[in-house]
Amino acid sequence: MGRRYDTISFLSDLGTADEHVGVVKAIVRDLAPHAQVVDLTHGIPSYDVRAGSLALARAIGYVPSGVVMAVVDAGERRAVAIEVADGEGVVIGPDNGLLASAISMAGGSGRAVILDNPEFQLASPGATVASRDVFAPIAAHLCNGVDLAELGTLVDADELLPGVVPLPRDADGGGVHAEVLWIDHAGNCQLNIGLDDVTPWGLAEGTRVEITAGDVTRVAQRVPRAGGLGPGSIGFVVDGFGLLTLVLDRRSAAEELALATADQVTVRPLAEGSKGAGVSVPVSLSEPRR
Amino acid sequence: MGRRYDTISFLSDLGTADEHVGVVKAIVRDLAPHAQVVDLTHGIPSYDVRAGSLALARAIGYVPSGVVMAVVDAGERRAVAIEVADGEGVVIGPDNGLLASAISMAGGSGRAVILDNPEFQLASPGATVASRDVFAPIAAHLCNGVDLAELGTLVDADELLPGVVPLPRDADGGGVHAEVLWIDHAGNCQLNIGLDDVTPWGLAEGTRVEITAGDVTRVAQRVPRAGGLGPGSIGFVVDGFGLLTLVLDRRSAAEELALATADQVTVRPLAEGSKGAGVSVPVSLSEPRR
Amino acid sequence: MGRRYDTISFLSDLGTADEHVGVVKAIVRDLAPHAQVVDLTHGIPSYDVRAGSLALARAIGYVPSGVVMAVVDAGERRAVAIEVADGEGVVIGPDNGLLASAISMAGGSGRAVILDNPEFQLASPGATVASRDVFAPIAAHLCNGVDLAELGTLVDADELLPGVVPLPRDADGGGVHAEVLWIDHAGNCQLNIGLDDVTPWGLAEGTRVEITAGDVTRVAQRVPRAGGLGPGSIGFVVDGFGLLTLVLDRRSAAEELALATADQVTVRPLAEGSKGAGVSVPVSLSEPRR
Repeated sequence: MGRRYDTISFLSDLGTADEHVGVVKAIVRDLAPHAQVVDLTHGIPSYDVRAGSLALARAIGYVPSGVVMAVVDAGERRAVAIEVADGEGVVIGPDNGLLASAISMAGGSGRAVILDNPEFQLASPGATVASRDVFAPIAAHLCNGVDLAELGTLVDADELLPGVVPLPRDADGGGVHAEVLWIDHAGNCQLNIGLDDVTPWGLAEGTRVEITAGDVTRVAQRVPRAGGLGPGSIGFVVDGFGLLTLVLDRRSAAEELALATADQVTVRPLAEGSKGAGVSVPVSLSEPRR
Repeated sequence: MGRRYDTISFLSDLGTADEHVGVVKAIVRDLAPHAQVVDLTHGIPSYDVRAGSLALARAIGYVPSGVVMAVVDAGERRAVAIEVADGEGVVIGPDNGLLASAISMAGGSGRAVILDNPEFQLASPGATVASRDVFAPIAAHLCNGVDLAELGTLVDADELLPGVVPLPRDADGGGVHAEVLWIDHAGNCQLNIGLDDVTPWGLAEGTRVEITAGDVTRVAQRVPRAGGLGPGSIGFVVDGFGLLTLVLDRRSAAEELALATADQVTVRPLAEGSKGAGVSVPVSLSEPRR
Repeated sequence: MGRRYDTISFLSDLGTADEHVGVVKAIVRDLAPHAQVVDLTHGIPSYDVRAGSLALARAIGYVPSGVVMAVVDAGERRAVAIEVADGEGVVIGPDNGLLASAISMAGGSGRAVILDNPEFQLASPGATVASRDVFAPIAAHLCNGVDLAELGTLVDADELLPGVVPLPRDADGGGVHAEVLWIDHAGNCQLNIGLDDVTPWGLAEGTRVEITAGDVTRVAQRVPRAGGLGPGSIGFVVDGFGLLTLVLDRRSAAEELALATADQVTVRPLAEGSKGAGVSVPVSLSEPRR
């Protein structure tokens, strides 16, 4: 027997309009009644492995030890289970790149297994429903202390599909080409720019940068939070994940800048004294500070 | 005292935009703190007894022993509780046909009671809110071991409103007139055709059938899963419930065929060698194989 | 050490499209594994303190003893915790008026504290995420028996921002100017008129009143429930919270009357025998009964 777990953190693209997610939880309750399911979200857009991967990576640092079950675009790929943190946790999901970033943030993979032992899965009267027939019973059996190695074929974790992590690239004029990682439900646009990427510019409150998204160029100002901005002004914060995020006060930055997830945004530092500080006027190209 | 239960599987048309579902769970937590509520779904369209009935029937085989609480269009009909599986479970809900299919799949009804004893319900400052004032406390009291007979007036289960189960009918040309039972959130269209209904045609992989929905006639091919289909090709699978389901690869079959729930679809077997295999061309009527 | 709690009732405007709510529950599960989170709703419209306040007030009478966590428009205001019911419960949330009505309904406030002790909060790599970094750990620590006074600076509850409770006002013709408090997901329009406000008119079944909303004047009839109304007829019930609510049979009263939350509605009693009983004809102004 392996270690027992009592929490299953569950993220999916299954939605809650029908009973799919509920059936997973019913099966877990039936097979492992001591286990608690924590719903991270089931609102990942259908098939959107990228969005699921990023949400899982944002959440992984906060989930308790136990099983992490991630089910996004799960139909067509083999199912895998991967130990993390010396067995403190087991991440299960499809082998489609969904899990890679989270596993990396959890310290990297330990043992990995392809979930191909039907003994620990449910038989279907027709096609296999991955969430119901594979992941739900596997999560429950892991909570009951079934060892990873019993669930299928051990593989080298390097054989699994890696995830794709978008990195910022240097831009002309001393800036960086960034990508919109995530638009939260308030319309704030998280970029793949961490503090380290922009340290040379300085990030004191009031620091201004030039933002180019498609044909639009605007100025954004470093603020501690969106609430301090005037109407229509664009700001950026270092968000709760340490990443640069474009914000407006109680309005959607995504709408204001016509940005969608994965769009490119170029961010350039503005020289002190530059007159590009207008709210709605495109600013002239300016010399970077460094 | 009756048997105690520790799980309440809960399905409704209440949505989660307001606090209705939350208040039900708060009441259960207050009255029966040992009981766990498993949310099957609260996304059944308002008043849609048919959709709720089918979702409950799909889920019932997976719920643990305990109370099953189904609340769809609950305002106007008397509330009932019905024992199933020799008391392994109790199904509660409105007497509007919602529960019939699920109870049948759970092996049929045992004792049944009209929930008309106010002692086990909550008083309202105005109109009764069925989910809050009737079903939540009843579910909790059942979990606490209150016997069914104490909750109201025992009745013969045959006096309750039966459900409506749509059956396929024979069509000209050796096919069947079927009905769209369910469109899942990927747009796959589940038909009320089981394996037995089409066994004469054979269902080997690659078997083709002709699908007529309204004015549109198309060819669909038996595939193990949607992922194997070419772009625009329509396939059908035997889905996770043993029923024929129309699918496209990562696209909505419902949209492609302009199908809504409860629409009629005629399915006819195609003769081998029929030239009706085009993806978007209406096929000529063909002789059935049998 | 203070009292321990084992339930956290959680209401927010965070939605469930992303992992925000899930991360809060993961943190609670990690820090206070014995505590159960009851989701009241996360569907409060973003920043809508008024809607959140009313939903919390509707729910508070049904939540079990323990922590009540309300997070609506939480980013910009200081966080507070307020004891209610002699310590049976602690309500936590932003100091923006959100909590006032619920606390009043729970019997008024006991000790109150500004949550400014970082020892019981999580450090963020960037901006503070109130739900994740403040409220989740505070709720968990309260469940673990940390006393309110340890969480920050004790204040007089009178220093906190009061809520706004809209009261009906007398109208010409013996009626009242009311406000739409809440439109539920069936489109029923709850008004801020309680039984006491209209007792002089009598409220026997069949009592008719005149409703004026914007340019539209219609007649509504007191019914026990919407199901008894004819097609297109407007009724009013005393709803499950003891308030007058405009209803139609399986249709949206909000749509029929073009009403939105917070709109004004004037309600006047109709004289017996008045001919204003038509369903869709604007009625003539009539003498009130009293």
